[in-house]
Amino acid sequence: MRSKKAKAEEFQDLHRSKRLFILPNALDVPSARLFEGLGFPAVATSSAGLMVSLGYPDGQTIPKKEFFSAIAKIARALSLPLSADIVAGFGSTPKQVVSTVRSVIKAGAIGVNIEDFEHSTKKLFSLESQVMKLQAVKKLGRSMGMPFVLNGRTDAYRFAEGNDEARLKEAIRRAKAYRNAGCDCVYPMGLVDHGMIKCFVEALDCPVNVMVRKGLPTVGELDSIGVKRVSFGPAASYAIFGFLERACQQVLETGTFSSLTDGAISFDDLNSLAVPRKNVL
Amino acid sequence: MRSKKAKAEEFQDLHRSKRLFILPNALDVPSARLFEGLGFPAVATSSAGLMVSLGYPDGQTIPKKEFFSAIAKIARALSLPLSADIVAGFGSTPKQVVSTVRSVIKAGAIGVNIEDFEHSTKKLFSLESQVMKLQAVKKLGRSMGMPFVLNGRTDAYRFAEGNDEARLKEAIRRAKAYRNAGCDCVYPMGLVDHGMIKCFVEALDCPVNVMVRKGLPTVGELDSIGVKRVSFGPAASYAIFGFLERACQQVLETGTFSSLTDGAISFDDLNSLAVPRKNVL
Repeated sequence: MRSKKAKAEEFQDLHRSKRLFILPNALDVPSARLFEGLGFPAVATSSAGLMVSLGYPDGQTIPKKEFFSAIAKIARALSLPLSADIVAGFGSTPKQVVSTVRSVIKAGAIGVNIEDFEHSTKKLFSLESQVMKLQAVKKLGRSMGMPFVLNGRTDAYRFAEGNDEARLKEAIRRAKAYRNAGCDCVYPMGLVDHGMIKCFVEALDCPVNVMVRKGLPTVGELDSIGVKRVSFGPAASYAIFGFLERACQQVLETGTFSSLTDGAISFDDLNSLAVPRKNVL
Repeated sequence: MRSKKAKAEEFQDLHRSKRLFILPNALDVPSARLFEGLGFPAVATSSAGLMVSLGYPDGQTIPKKEFFSAIAKIARALSLPLSADIVAGFGSTPKQVVSTVRSVIKAGAIGVNIEDFEHSTKKLFSLESQVMKLQAVKKLGRSMGMPFVLNGRTDAYRFAEGNDEARLKEAIRRAKAYRNAGCDCVYPMGLVDHGMIKCFVEALDCPVNVMVRKGLPTVGELDSIGVKRVSFGPAASYAIFGFLERACQQVLETGTFSSLTDGAISFDDLNSLAVPRKNVL
């Protein structure tokens, strides 16, 4: 098993590579292992996906201990670098957020996403307070000698005031401040339009992460405008439960089971997704 | 919220109803809640599905405390009766199996499946030792005043000696003994053939459970030969991960995301699957 530091460097390198990379977000151990088996270069956790699978709504209501334990399980099962979505860092002060990041790195992650809004109120934190948190997290990385990837997410395009243009402008202003605070990558939430993404990327001049949503340009188009990282976010959970709903409707409406049995994996395949790849025969 | 006893009686009644019922097995809280929302009359856990989702292979390697806690979470999230697949009861003596069942009922389940073979060796337990366990579990139900449903599973058709006919005969011999030991339902594993299922049901004269597998007759056909309960087993997990694999292959091969975004549920829908139905707006 490669060291955590080697994984962190490998994950950093992906952001500096010429082409973009696709980062699938897992909801549990088997989805993470499935992504690994398919050849993705790294894996992330989805906060909504993971929390809902453990019986908590997205946000910060899951007990921290259970959250860290779930990340540790996924990290232990993978040989790939793992990045964790930690919502807003489970705390309102830089000290609290640093403590969360330390636990998440200890659990085996080598990257974190940190949001700039409060889930319950949908209000953006002040730019100053967010920058202080990100600077403190970056300092932690240096003090640990652990080059983990800090991804600064901004939801300004969703929750700031004004029209599309004003909100895009605010997202760019915030992302620049997060980059200057030491973020290795910035993550504008809500952007799907080709022109807007292009405008954002050109303004930033650092690695930019976009999330899979309906209407997102193709991988080739995103690559050509300079996006470096495309993450699934909670898309795997949205898709899985949409699929399961359709499969069950077929069972209930027609009394047949082909939607569950055709194209399914086997018992041995399922079990192999619970254990590290090197243990799979 | 209905009492556990009322749910147990409701689940018992489903086995005595004129028509069969379909029992979907969940792997986690959101799949259980999705089944509830679709109108199934009860929900079960899948041992393989639930364990793999928590990072353990099927069998009895998951720590018992974590297993009970996962069942409790699912039970808390549902208004429907919940039955738990508890593999071979996490113990080799009647006392140990009774202790497991007590914990599972305490966690909120009102039904249990108990297997008659050892996962690691694929060897059947002796008929005598299995009957002693089932009798002890039935006695526990009476002493608790809790009419939970005891489902006696036999894997004799898969793991006994001899040809198809000999193994079917042994499955029938064992299932009769389990029924006589007090099982409310019997569960022959590996039977998919219409004629064999019919033969088994006619020999038993008590509720019979069959599992969804490729080639299983339709709901209408199973109903007409007297099957009372059709459970998904791990089919939802097999199907979900087959689907997710195909969706990712599309992303990797074509650079497009429609396999993840088309037919997907929304963020609000996903979050609603983490909380009890009565809390969903």
